[in-house]
Amino acid sequence: MKILLIGGHGTIGRRVAAAFADGHELITAGRSSGDVRVDLASEASIETMFQQLGTVDACICTAGTGHYGDFHAMRQADMMAGVAGKLFGQVNLVLIGQRYLTAGGSFTLTSGIAAEHPARNGACVAMLNGAVNSFVLAAAQELRHGQRINAVSPGLVEDSRERYGDRFPGYNLVPMPKLVNAYLLSVLGAVTGKVLKVYS
Amino acid sequence: MKILLIGGHGTIGRRVAAAFADGHELITAGRSSGDVRVDLASEASIETMFQQLGTVDACICTAGTGHYGDFHAMRQADMMAGVAGKLFGQVNLVLIGQRYLTAGGSFTLTSGIAAEHPARNGACVAMLNGAVNSFVLAAAQELRHGQRINAVSPGLVEDSRERYGDRFPGYNLVPMPKLVNAYLLSVLGAVTGKVLKVYS
Ligand SMILES: NC(=O)c1ccc[n+]([C@@H]2O[C@H](COP(=O)([O-])OP(=O)(O)OC[C@H]3O[C@@H](n4cnc5c(N)ncnc54)[C@H](OP(=O)(O)O)[C@@H]3O)[C@@H](O)[C@H]2O)c1
Ligand SMILES: NC(=O)c1ccc[n+]([C@@H]2O[C@H](COP(=O)([O-])OP(=O)(O)OC[C@H]3O[C@@H](n4cnc5c(N)ncnc54)[C@H](OP(=O)(O)O)[C@@H]3O)[C@@H](O)[C@H]2O)c1
Repeated sequence: MKILLIGGHGTIGRRVAAAFADGHELITAGRSSGDVRVDLASEASIETMFQQLGTVDACICTAGTGHYGDFHAMRQADMMAGVAGKLFGQVNLVLIGQRYLTAGGSFTLTSGIAAEHPARNGACVAMLNGAVNSFVLAAAQELRHGQRINAVSPGLVEDSRERYGDRFPGYNLVPMPKLVNAYLLSVLGAVTGKVLKVYS
Repeated sequence: MKILLIGGHGTIGRRVAAAFADGHELITAGRSSGDVRVDLASEASIETMFQQLGTVDACICTAGTGHYGDFHAMRQADMMAGVAGKLFGQVNLVLIGQRYLTAGGSFTLTSGIAAEHPARNGACVAMLNGAVNSFVLAAAQELRHGQRINAVSPGLVEDSRERYGDRFPGYNLVPMPKLVNAYLLSVLGAVTGKVLKVYS
């Protein structure tokens, strides 16, 4: 398969990349990393990326982030980078990418546990993840030619323990192989319209 | 109670208004309707509204809408009015309004069944509703002074049968009194951090 992985050099993305390295043509993308440069916050940049690549059999996104901060001081402006990147970035990847995805191909987006179990200071991230999850339910009904779409919703992953652990007291760490399995299931399996929750 | 109801002259809002008309000081708000003028798409307009009103004991929002349209032709620009009004409008109502809500007061936002069961052409609305629901879960953890927050998530309501029925084949109509009960529960009850789903 020809697989496009946006965010392939991030914490999660590099593990997903390793899982698809053998037996597939893997293309990674990011703003400052990867085989191809793309900024998900720009529709034009997404369109240009797909024009460069032509069709792909799978499009995985492990890129994007959200704002963490004091709820009482938070303002809309604080949320806009996350909205542009993680929410509209992923939505636009599907809206634009559907024309470049082969029949039977798949989109795999990334949301997160905050949609259901937000941590303190995580209202922005909760909102983004809830939006991505519900978008995926709807998009799965609309895609044509057997195209599929799922969201992987990770809990706090093992590889992020140092970077983010303090934000998530009491959250169980998700083993990386368990998380990677959800991406494998979405890309290589038959599921569609699912939020693959990798936490319990 | 002093109750602020944004969207109080809409299809759902007028029924909610009727339920709170007796025994409460009810103030309705809208862009072109209601006791007070507000455009939820503007943070400044929300701030001005609260400055005019002073503190309120409950803030209910039944305002906002989303884009319905062909998924394959949809672009980010089609979604921005819904994002500004229904999503950020409601989020900003909470972020700004928390300073004007009395101790023990409540926010009640409105999402919708599309978060879980989107209809055809409803990917934008699904996204907005999913975002509102998850935001509410997070906000409930953050609010202080006993302030509460819930989302009412209506199915297709009886009063919208003519206007929207064609968009929702096979969706059961929600009786208006059943829907209004969810707003009563949120405002007068003790619940917080709930998505009150009024559909089955
Ligand atoms: N880590 C966790 O425990 C965890 C838990 C739940 C959910 N998640 C979600 O999983 C996703 C990945 O998380 P992560 O921890 O792996 O993040 P990360 O380490 O920060 O990696 C993000 C990657 O995405 C790329 N990227 C960021 N913004 C981009 C944009 N606008 N356009 C293109 N590429 C962009 C970055 O590369 P460039 O800088 O080169 O662009 C980077 O490679 C995020 O959506 C996150 O919210 C993570
Ligand atoms: N009707 C249904 O069956 C149904 C089902 C599920 C979910 N919902 C949701 O429930 C909510 C209300 O639906 P509805 O059918 O009652 O809508 P509606 O009849 O269109 O009424 C919306 C009301 O909100 C006000 N409004 C709209 N945008 C506003 C803004 N930016 N700032 C301030 N006020 C604004 C409008 O008044 P002005 O024009 O004067 O501003 C109007 O009174 C919406 O979020 C809708 O998505 C409805």
